[in-house]
Amino acid sequence: MKNSFFSRFTPKEPKFFPLLKQLSEILAASSELLVESLKHDSPEERTGFYKRIKDMEREGDKLAHRILDELGTTFITPFDREDIHDLASSIDDVIDGINSCAKRIAIYNPHPISESGKELSRMIQQEAECIVKAMDELETFRKNPNTLRGYCSKMHDIENQADDVYEFFITRLFEEEKDCIELIKVKEIVYELEKTTDAAEHVGKILRSLIVKYA
Amino acid sequence: MKNSFFSRFTPKEPKFFPLLKQLSEILAASSELLVESLKHDSPEERTGFYKRIKDMEREGDKLAHRILDELGTTFITPFDREDIHDLASSIDDVIDGINSCAKRIAIYNPHPISESGKELSRMIQQEAECIVKAMDELETFRKNPNTLRGYCSKMHDIENQADDVYEFFITRLFEEEKDCIELIKVKEIVYELEKTTDAAEHVGKILRSLIVKYA
Amino acid sequence: MKNSFFSRFTPKEPKFFPLLKQLSEILAASSELLVESLKHDSPEERTGFYKRIKDMEREGDKLAHRILDELGTTFITPFDREDIHDLASSIDDVIDGINSCAKRIAIYNPHPISESGKELSRMIQQEAECIVKAMDELETFRKNPNTLRGYCSKMHDIENQADDVYEFFITRLFEEEKDCIELIKVKEIVYELEKTTDAAEHVGKILRSLIVKYA
Repeated sequence: MKNSFFSRFTPKEPKFFPLLKQLSEILAASSELLVESLKHDSPEERTGFYKRIKDMEREGDKLAHRILDELGTTFITPFDREDIHDLASSIDDVIDGINSCAKRIAIYNPHPISESGKELSRMIQQEAECIVKAMDELETFRKNPNTLRGYCSKMHDIENQADDVYEFFITRLFEEEKDCIELIKVKEIVYELEKTTDAAEHVGKILRSLIVKYA
Repeated sequence: MKNSFFSRFTPKEPKFFPLLKQLSEILAASSELLVESLKHDSPEERTGFYKRIKDMEREGDKLAHRILDELGTTFITPFDREDIHDLASSIDDVIDGINSCAKRIAIYNPHPISESGKELSRMIQQEAECIVKAMDELETFRKNPNTLRGYCSKMHDIENQADDVYEFFITRLFEEEKDCIELIKVKEIVYELEKTTDAAEHVGKILRSLIVKYA
Repeated sequence: MKNSFFSRFTPKEPKFFPLLKQLSEILAASSELLVESLKHDSPEERTGFYKRIKDMEREGDKLAHRILDELGTTFITPFDREDIHDLASSIDDVIDGINSCAKRIAIYNPHPISESGKELSRMIQQEAECIVKAMDELETFRKNPNTLRGYCSKMHDIENQADDVYEFFITRLFEEEKDCIELIKVKEIVYELEKTTDAAEHVGKILRSLIVKYA
């Protein structure tokens, strides 16, 4: 509101787009590492992947803060200030989620992760790829919102599937797993994976609201 | 602030009130289903209730998003934009909480839920009823805030009681339950129930802040 | 933005500083009680400490609400309205975190808390002390931000150490603890302690963003 009021009189500066794109690429890279990490089961390998993902999480954190700091000092942005803020924060939340997954795998050190866990990690990666592509639409979706809308729908569908995978898996886990400590480990890791697919869809929801507001 | 500045010069449009009322009615209906679901213990019944509650959660989600989207495109609202946003989001959070409770009951499938769990679900329902009635006050509380203030106090009292029920129950659970997996199931379901009474009281806190701001 | 626009024409009123300072002192006092509570292991003592911490949490809650309410009715503040809001809310979140730690200890009633748990509680206290001192800088950091910047760095360092303590401890816990119910108790208490060091560092992040914006 504030910005759209003033933006009638002042030029816009699009410098936030490349920063958001860069942030989404950190997300994509860390989701790829997460998928890869679930193929390895030794404590050493798990700790190794966690370390690499944690480094990326810190990099993402720095970049997100740089975006938020620049928002605090820049008067005009391409969208409302809050929209850029929400986008950067929500992408950072997905990176944080991936880091939490990798952390739990490393410090709980469960038996090999089930196929459902692997499937969830691939879903996170697919959502991350949607987000990377969506960042390319930010400059143009006002004229042609269909491509961006398509990515949002895709993320929504993936999230619904992730819900089903999660619910089916947990139902079976509680029926079948009799080792209580193993159950705790697996339940919490798979819960974090599902929550991360949610966090990714949340980026999609913010993008959808941009379409409603600006396109 | 933005709006109150501009609203000196422009007519207000009260169309958000019926939408918020509608959202609160979805909340009340799903809280009623939750209370009912706790009286049934077979996996099939639990899954059936969860499905119906999940449908309502999606309906609530759509409505909440419609409210937020209209806020994004409407210039003037009866209150500050953020107040409507906070109200809609917080009511939606309670519906989400109820959905999480039903989901955990269905996928963990614990032994019959204890009286404390049932009590918490009834407290959620009572809070939901307060919220429905509170929505009727939105148009008039500026002149007479006492009725709305009464609902807020009632929600606050219910939440304090819910805290006590929860703490007493968990203390006993950890003393008495020796089946670790059953303990996990019950602990997490009752935790989610208590968190949902919190989420309902949060709506009350937002309403109270409206009284401070506008009445 | 809003405020900086208007603040060119109106005097500022610094009354929020003493309120924030007061809130930080409640935080410091409750963190001290938490450290003390971990030295006592009987259910009665734990419940006693929890009651005292809960009283402080309610006091903090009231004060935070008073700050937020006054923000709602005051037009001009020393900073942007949202900055005061974020500071008050985030300090209140740390007090809430301390309350959750004490609550879990009282209602789960685990075996004596390990040295790692005690270490985390001392880290929370150190962060709380940084926050108290930081409140004294709010009036002057625009001219000389170095002292405030120093407190932010210190909190950041403490949080990194807390991460390491937590991860090392949980890794060992899952390797060594064979009593599943005890494992649940300890895991969740130590998790809450670590989350509270995070919440405290979040105050540091907000302070850092103030330096970027105003100094």
